[in-house]
Parts: sequence; structure tokens; C-alpha cells
Amino acid sequence: MDNQEAMNRAFGYIERNRQRFLAELKEFLSFPSVSADSDRTDDVKECAIWLAGHLGSLGLESRVVETSGHPIVLAHNRNRTGKRVIVYGHYDVQPPDPVEEWKTPPFEPVVKDGFIYGRGASDDKGQLFAHVKAVEALIKAGGGLYRDVIFLFEGEEESGGRSLEQYIARNRDSLACDFVVVSDTAMYDEKTPAIAYGLRGIVAFEFELKTAEADLHSGVFGGAVPNAAMAICRILAECKGPGGEVLVDGFYNDVRPLTEWETRNLRNLAVDADKFAREAGVINAFGQEGFSILERIWARPALDINGVWGGYTGEGSKTVIPASASAKVSIRLVPDQKPEKIAALVTDYIRRMCPKYAELKFAGPAIAAEPIVFDVNYPAIQAGRRALERGFGAEPVFTRCGGSIPVVNTLYGRLGRPVVLMGFGLDSDGAHSPNERFSLDNFYKGIKASVCLLGG
Amino acid sequence: MDNQEAMNRAFGYIERNRQRFLAELKEFLSFPSVSADSDRTDDVKECAIWLAGHLGSLGLESRVVETSGHPIVLAHNRNRTGKRVIVYGHYDVQPPDPVEEWKTPPFEPVVKDGFIYGRGASDDKGQLFAHVKAVEALIKAGGGLYRDVIFLFEGEEESGGRSLEQYIARNRDSLACDFVVVSDTAMYDEKTPAIAYGLRGIVAFEFELKTAEADLHSGVFGGAVPNAAMAICRILAECKGPGGEVLVDGFYNDVRPLTEWETRNLRNLAVDADKFAREAGVINAFGQEGFSILERIWARPALDINGVWGGYTGEGSKTVIPASASAKVSIRLVPDQKPEKIAALVTDYIRRMCPKYAELKFAGPAIAAEPIVFDVNYPAIQAGRRALERGFGAEPVFTRCGGSIPVVNTLYGRLGRPVVLMGFGLDSDGAHSPNERFSLDNFYKGIKASVCLLGG
Repeated sequence: MDNQEAMNRAFGYIERNRQRFLAELKEFLSFPSVSADSDRTDDVKECAIWLAGHLGSLGLESRVVETSGHPIVLAHNRNRTGKRVIVYGHYDVQPPDPVEEWKTPPFEPVVKDGFIYGRGASDDKGQLFAHVKAVEALIKAGGGLYRDVIFLFEGEEESGGRSLEQYIARNRDSLACDFVVVSDTAMYDEKTPAIAYGLRGIVAFEFELKTAEADLHSGVFGGAVPNAAMAICRILAECKGPGGEVLVDGFYNDVRPLTEWETRNLRNLAVDADKFAREAGVINAFGQEGFSILERIWARPALDINGVWGGYTGEGSKTVIPASASAKVSIRLVPDQKPEKIAALVTDYIRRMCPKYAELKFAGPAIAAEPIVFDVNYPAIQAGRRALERGFGAEPVFTRCGGSIPVVNTLYGRLGRPVVLMGFGLDSDGAHSPNERFSLDNFYKGIKASVCLLGG
Repeated sequence: MDNQEAMNRAFGYIERNRQRFLAELKEFLSFPSVSADSDRTDDVKECAIWLAGHLGSLGLESRVVETSGHPIVLAHNRNRTGKRVIVYGHYDVQPPDPVEEWKTPPFEPVVKDGFIYGRGASDDKGQLFAHVKAVEALIKAGGGLYRDVIFLFEGEEESGGRSLEQYIARNRDSLACDFVVVSDTAMYDEKTPAIAYGLRGIVAFEFELKTAEADLHSGVFGGAVPNAAMAICRILAECKGPGGEVLVDGFYNDVRPLTEWETRNLRNLAVDADKFAREAGVINAFGQEGFSILERIWARPALDINGVWGGYTGEGSKTVIPASASAKVSIRLVPDQKPEKIAALVTDYIRRMCPKYAELKFAGPAIAAEPIVFDVNYPAIQAGRRALERGFGAEPVFTRCGGSIPVVNTLYGRLGRPVVLMGFGLDSDGAHSPNERFSLDNFYKGIKASVCLLGG
């Protein structure tokens, strides 16, 4: 926003309308739009209709797009300028279970000590609503939008639906844009906003190892026949060294080294190992030697067993020799690792490690997402940084994210434009837990940051 | 039996009464004495009453001994000579499930192609009944018993009951004997009877390994926190070398070497690895290098994982880092290994292998049985050998058994006398499977062998 006065007018509008914004957010949060619960299908739809209606009341052209799953809510400003930004969000929420652990009912939002409590407060209704209120402030008091804005709000994020992906694939032309904004992540800490400029990718598969037609009696056969559980333990153990390094040949070949700036940045953000372990609830941090905790999570690939099972796992003793054993393995990827290539390297390695007395059967890869890193010098990302700084009154930091956000892969992959991940939530919001909450201070600061991004 | 003529008379009696013996066995088999099925409690009792009545009708002093579980059937001859043998057997049977896989009803015995089919035919009613009929032949035609005989038949073998153990512990004086006969094992092959002179022992335990308070998200934390499933795989894999040898320090220290005679005997009995693998249903045989298959099963200890589990084991993918993982381990023991000592060695080894980022919790040892080897030169065992040779008309072989037979530990442990394990069954009898059967040829030969042992 070049016009300081227009921005001040918009900020003033926000201050004057704090109570109304909050009342509207409460109304939005009271829809039990639980997408994973088929009993809530109508509630999800009513929420979509309410949201589209609200967007229409602000002067936007809005509509509810029916899909084979839950609807998408789409809205855009009427007078196009050409410079266009897509604001992504999701109006569906996690199931509130276990309901009995909520101190106040999950869909009867209440304000207490500067937080609004309710399912979806932080993930993601509160965050997407900040952008909606920013657009209102710009239209009603700030002299209009500087960019074209498309609101793209889905209702299947928490239930793994594919409707948005299909919609984007079919509407690439009408969704052509300069960049995308996603506010569905967390701030660095309570005072410091953050832009996540990278996401790890993922590839996951499952395999079964078979050594016999049926479980055998460990007395009659023990010592002379292979044990599938032991065989799978050997193979899995051979995937990683004692220092945490992945032993699969070529596994690290395509890992892009950190830039000088990134190395400095990670050093500045460094977390204390004991504090990290305490917060994660682990006895000790553990990872590849020679790398800091942030490097391990953000910038290094990771191979994990997600599950392993074989033989008798019930109560008491059963002296069988397991005929088969299985494991689920996932690998978090960093640029420039390719999911298919890494999956092939790891499964080939497992095949080579498999002794001749066992047969292997693979399933998958089941999930595959490319790792993504955006150049922090992209104009959109720098605009996001400036907007956060002005909205929050604090210098934002650049982080990466150890997980994948499938929608970011979809948006980036289909539209080919950078995605600005600027979250207004906190790790302590309890996004998928009882008593989810959202800081009202961050809500209003988020509105101001969005005003700066969309209006300036 | 020094008296060849008396033996001939007993043999003649058996020949003349083949059909009646078979009819009586059929009656015995028709009781559904399934000890593990509480709906069958009355059937078990009726079977015990029938058996005691039958023994009484032969002129023995017999009774049904009530216990806290299923009754014991006890019988002995009236005129004691002093030399005494206990014949152990069990009149309870395995559940017939899956009943639909039986070609004829499990408790309506039928004869076909030289076999009698029915639940308990081989395990153990048919085998114990051979001894009963031998005593009848000796009393009625063979000039009486040479030794005092105590029949000790339990009704809880297939359900793991402790009543017999308690009874023996309380009646050691009245059960004092020269030796014990147990016919509840298999012949070496269809033509060759066998005496099993050794049993492996067993010790089993379970352990849990914990690395975190709760499962963690593999995106957010992967690479920087320990994985309990990986940790347990490493520990279990480190228990054995790639050649199948147990790596626990001192594990083999107390293994008694084979005698020269045993080495020769095992070499003579050697089984073909491919045939063994085919019969076991494994892709390949596998075991400690430098030892034959029979050595591995009979004369070497074996460490097996009976079950392992950790993390997500359901359908599909869940990218968690398991906070805990568990394993059940059993160890088959050979003389002179002590269950407690070996359990301590292995659990100490696991403790040492446990990385500092994990906590261990052990449960057990759950089962513990001492390994047993009887000197084949014991007079009782040599008498058993001669009896089998005369009854079956074939030279018996001496085998060991890779499993444990708890009642043998009880009898040997409490009474301190050798146990002659002379089985009349075949591995192909399907002891715990549908269509269990018993060779009538072996039934009659078993009666004759018993005549020779008890009468001579």
C-alpha cells in the first residue's frame, strides 16, 4: 500500500469493528463443519452457504461450487485490475473428539483471556476469516483492493478429499495468478510471525516379508527355520546406521545443500536440544550426526518406520515362529530428491538386504509429494514478509516445515506460482486437540497483515 | 517277559480280541472330552467315569480323583510286587475346530484304510488305551503283570491345567516308582518306533521399549527424534548374527556337547535339508552354521522372536513415529542351560544394547522349563527299546524332541525317575488338526510293545 493514509483508514476501520468481526467469527465457528463425519454433511454445506453469503455481502462475487464431495466456496472482486492473488483456506474442521475433554462446547465459541475457544478457531476458520475481514476493510475504508483477490476455500482439507485438486486441474486458466497465500501454519513463536518457504516431500510404502506358509512351533522347528520377524528387524535395522544416517546407497545424492543465507538463518533460529526434547516429549533428541535439530527437521531427509508387526501380538505367550512380518515406512524428502527415485532406491536396497530364505512383497508407494523450497527473494514472499512486519509490528522469520502440505503441492504444481505460507496460528493452539483456540491479538494483527499484502 | 510262552499267550489274546479292542476304542473316542471348552465339562467327567469303570472291569483298583479342574483317573493292580511303573496319559482332547473341515464327525469315530479317524485318536486316547489293553492281555492271558502298574490319566493336558501337577506334588510317596512311561509323542517314521530321550527347555519374556510420551508426527519431528520401532528392530537384530548364531555373551557356555554316541546317532538319522524345508513349509532351512538340522532342533538352543509390534499397523498409511514398540521372545534351551540364567543373560544383553534415548520394561520370564536329557543306558529306557523292538518288529531309534512337554518336567522333577517317551503316533496323524487319525497297525503293535514292557 503506497498510500499510507489509505492504510491508516483501513487499520482504523479494523479497530472500530473489532467486536463485530469477533461476533461474525463466532457465528462462523458455530457451524459443526466436520468433513470427516458423514452425519455432518449438511452442516458442512450450511457453513459453505453462510460463508459464500458473507463474502457476497462484502460486495464480492461469490458462489458455492458443488463437487462430488463437500463444496468449494469461491469469491472474487468485481473490478479486475489484472494483478491477482489467490487466498486459500479451508472452512471444514477436525472432529471434536474426545468431546468430553473440552472445557466449553466445541461449537459454542467463547472468549477467555484474549483467546477464542472452539473447533476450527485456529485451523483454519479464524485464519481464513482474517483475510476476509482484510478485504472488507480495504473495500469499505481503504480505497479498494490493490490486487485482484480470489478466495478459494475448500471443505475437505481435514478429510483428505480430492475435490479441490480436481477443481484446480480443470480451472487452471481462470485460476491463473501471481501468487497464492495460505494461512494454515503457525508463527515462529508468540511474538514472531513467520513465512514457511519450504516443505519436505514424502513417499511412503509398505512391505511384507514371508518365510513360511504358516507360523511354526518354536519347539519343533526353532533353530532350523527362518523367523520372518527377525528377518524384517534385520532389514529395517540395516536401513540406518547407529548414528541415525540412512545407509541406502545414493540416498543423500540429490540433497540440495543449504545456501549460505539458509545456513546463517538456521543458525540464528537454532533450538536448544533439551528444550526441543522436552517439547516433543522424547527422552532424548536423536538424529543424523553433524546436523543441527533444525537442519534434521527442515533440510535433511528422514526415513522412519511408521509401523511394524509380525507373529503373536496378543496377551500372554505363544511360542510361534512368525511366517510373515510387515512394516510401513515413510521417507521425508528435501529438494532435489524425487519421491519415485528415492522409493526405488530404498525398495531396491531392501530387496538386496532380503535373505534368500524370505520373499518380499511391496505395496505402494502410497503417498508421494514432492519437496518444495521457494526462493525467499520472490517478490511475493518479500511482500508477505513486509506485510507481516507491518501487521504484527515484529520482524518475521523464514522457516521451513518438516511436513508436507498437500494443497501447497497442488497449488504450486498446477498453477506454477509461489505460495506464501504466512500463518497466524500458534503451535499451542491445539489445532487437532480439544480446546482449540486462536489468539484474538493475532486475529486482528493477521487482518492488518493481510490488508498490507492485499492492499499494498 | 522272560517267559516266552506267556508272551505268546498275551500276543494271541490280542490277536483274538482285535475287533473288541477297536470297538472299545471307538466308544472311548466318542466322548467329546474337550477340556478347553467349558460347555464340555460334563462330557470330560463322563469320559473319566467311563475310563475308570473300564479299568475297574479289568480287575484294577480304579477311581476318579476330583480336582479343582477336570478329574484325574487313577488305577493300579491289586497285588503289588514292588517294582513299579507309572503309565501317564491324557483322556482330554483338543477342540475339534474347524469342525467343517472334518470329513467325518470328530466324535463319531470311523475306520478307513487301516486308520481310525476321530478327535483324540492319536492324541492321546488311542495311545493310552494301548497300554490299558496290554495290561488286560497280561492279566487275562499272560500270567499277570511283572511290574506294578499305576495308570495316571489326566483331563487337562490340552487346556494347560495345573491339577495333575498339584496332585503329583501332594502324592509323591504313593507315586514313588522305578520309571514312568509316556506315550504322547510320534514314531520316527511309519515303520520305525522311537524313544525320545531328550526335550529342550524353554524360557520366554516380553519387553517394551519407549522413546516418547506419544506417537509423533513424522513430518514435524522425523529425523530429529528416536523411533521406538527402529530401536527395537536394532536391538532384536543385534541378538543374532547373520549366520543364525546368538550373539548374547555367554549364551552357549553351558551347552553340554553331544557325546560320541549322540553325534553318531544324529549323523545316522540325518534329514535332508530340502525335504525338511518342504515339510516345514519354509522357503529354505536356516540355522546356526556348522550344525546339522537335527542338531539345530534337538541339541542347540534357539532364540526366536514370537511377536513384534509398534506404531500404526492398520490399513493404509499413517505417518507416525512410534513412541513405543514391543517384542515377545522365547528361547529353547538344552542341557545344561538354566532358564533363569539364560533369561538374565539375554535381558542384560538387551539392556546393554538399548540406546540412551529409550527406556526398557521387561515382563516375565513367563514360561520356564528346564531342558531334560535322559541317559539312554538307563535300564528303563533300554527296556523300552527292547519292548518297542519286539512289539513293532523293527529296531527303534533314539530321538530328541525340540519342544518341551511340561508333564515330563513335572514327572521327572517331582518323582526323580526317568521317563520313557515311547510314542505310537505319527507326525501325519494330525494331532491338533481336523481328521485326526491313528494307525490301527500301530495301535496293535503298541499294545504288544506295552505287553513286553509291563510284562517282561
